[in-house]
Amino acid sequence: MSEYIVVALDAMGGDNAPSEMVKGAVDAINSNKEVKVVLVGKEDVINTELSNYTYNKEQISIKNATEVIETAEHPVMAIKRKKDSSMVVGLHLVKDGEADAFVSAGNSGALLVGGLGIVGRIRGIERSPFGALIPTKTGVALLVDSGSNVDCRSSHLVQFAKMGSIYMEKALGIKNPRVAIVNNGAEEEKGNALVKETMPLLKECSDINFIGGLEAREIPAGAADVIVCDGFVGNAILKTYEGVASTLLSVFKEGLTSNLKSKIGAALALPSLKNKLKAFDATQYGGAPLLGLNGLVVKTHGSAKAGEVKNTIFQCATFKEQRINEHIRENIVIEKKKEE
Amino acid sequence: MSEYIVVALDAMGGDNAPSEMVKGAVDAINSNKEVKVVLVGKEDVINTELSNYTYNKEQISIKNATEVIETAEHPVMAIKRKKDSSMVVGLHLVKDGEADAFVSAGNSGALLVGGLGIVGRIRGIERSPFGALIPTKTGVALLVDSGSNVDCRSSHLVQFAKMGSIYMEKALGIKNPRVAIVNNGAEEEKGNALVKETMPLLKECSDINFIGGLEAREIPAGAADVIVCDGFVGNAILKTYEGVASTLLSVFKEGLTSNLKSKIGAALALPSLKNKLKAFDATQYGGAPLLGLNGLVVKTHGSAKAGEVKNTIFQCATFKEQRINEHIRENIVIEKKKEE
Repeated sequence: MSEYIVVALDAMGGDNAPSEMVKGAVDAINSNKEVKVVLVGKEDVINTELSNYTYNKEQISIKNATEVIETAEHPVMAIKRKKDSSMVVGLHLVKDGEADAFVSAGNSGALLVGGLGIVGRIRGIERSPFGALIPTKTGVALLVDSGSNVDCRSSHLVQFAKMGSIYMEKALGIKNPRVAIVNNGAEEEKGNALVKETMPLLKECSDINFIGGLEAREIPAGAADVIVCDGFVGNAILKTYEGVASTLLSVFKEGLTSNLKSKIGAALALPSLKNKLKAFDATQYGGAPLLGLNGLVVKTHGSAKAGEVKNTIFQCATFKEQRINEHIRENIVIEKKKEE
Repeated sequence: MSEYIVVALDAMGGDNAPSEMVKGAVDAINSNKEVKVVLVGKEDVINTELSNYTYNKEQISIKNATEVIETAEHPVMAIKRKKDSSMVVGLHLVKDGEADAFVSAGNSGALLVGGLGIVGRIRGIERSPFGALIPTKTGVALLVDSGSNVDCRSSHLVQFAKMGSIYMEKALGIKNPRVAIVNNGAEEEKGNALVKETMPLLKECSDINFIGGLEAREIPAGAADVIVCDGFVGNAILKTYEGVASTLLSVFKEGLTSNLKSKIGAALALPSLKNKLKAFDATQYGGAPLLGLNGLVVKTHGSAKAGEVKNTIFQCATFKEQRINEHIRENIVIEKKKEE
């Protein structure tokens, strides 16, 4: 591997592929001299896109892959059958040590199946959760698991809490991140069977700053930095978050443009409004990493544009620089062995 | 029981008790001649509040109760020990047939414990879910269970779906309501163990309009009328909904008032904006009924003001007029017996 941090990017995945993927890659290398991007996908298509830009040729290469996994495909079947898809080829680059990370805006389920099957979990990590970065009023929080493991055991949630804590501390620079578990109330007696079993285990963890249970209502206000739950609950929270935000924004837009008076008002208020809303947008931090793998696999939104792609490439660079997987190995796996 | 529809109201429960509770009761009877409200709580306190209003004395009475269950109290202990609390006394009015419904903005857990223990479930109904009305872009949807049963079996979810369907059809006049189950994706193979077990059972129900699984992202857009899930997931969705909406509204407010230009703009846009946002507010429909009890028990928001209290009293009147519990008995319980 070169001295560069090498990020393989699925040039064919997502609603805006390949154009926004390629643009994001060019933008990333143009502002970070330590990163090299391998664009994975149909060589001719990628070359056509690249011809629109000027950039340091040493920092971008292409890995040809003739197939594409579509969003609606069955994840297991797709990974099994499409051996020459951009996703499978990109994941093999990480497995073979030719890339430090793989980023895709494509089929989440396939990325999960492929990440586990091709890159594989760190030995001792029981489950790999998606960690989605969600916006809060005061910054950003990590929702872990945001959708990878829909049925969990308490030992899984404990590892999610630890990996999430390491991630927020190292990748986002949040010191001593506050870790909370999603619960249906603040009171001690609350919780479903899983939460009741997990709560005392988390309290015993001396290596994380566990602050207890929190109701989902408190997440947007910024009540915790790492929010632990099973992947079914996490998916429900993440998707509700996105759905309510997008619906409310459209209701607002309609309100601001429903008549001439409100349109004039909107024109006056828009700059400062946009400024405030920009803070409530997590795409500036990058995509959702699949934590606990032998390498880094990151999912960006299906709707990701160049800006989010660029931020996700930077996120991969930080992940590598901060040696996050080494911290996971040292702090979770080795400690676990000691206990056994 | 008189010819009136009798609604017992916890005058002492919630952040704004007793003043907003009493005001809501007076507003309700002043605009509906068929409703009688029994204000349950400290007689002298209630009388002082009532002295501020003129109203038909026949439509309001007081049932004295000397104790109050606080929001932070342990539900089971509170119901057991505070026999003369407004909540316990009010629930007994329903049990004894002196009231058709009981409404409280107080401790949700205690209301659930008391509703089950004092009023009791309809024979044949396995679990009583809270059905929260949540706003959507096109109207309103019922989230059931929104927090009552945190660990559920598939047979519980099937009954939630049926009770929710009856409720939305009869209480809100939505014909052939679309029933969906919360899932972590639209694809057939998605779901945690509970959803995978429940999905085929719901498909077999010929008495509901089951449209399949839906991602939480689609709820705010109005993709279904009855949204089925266990109470833990439902609580997470409901609280995320409330938290994101309130945080985004405050971000918007800050954006609209951050400088002189935006303030002028805000003043111009406000009327039409408020108008649009009003539609995205479910309190106009009332509180969250605890479905499947021998009588009606409704939880309003802890922060409920007179308007929401009044709407909840009207909701109780509709529940009684539309004979919703009779429909639940006929369509769910009797059908279930036939199957056995």
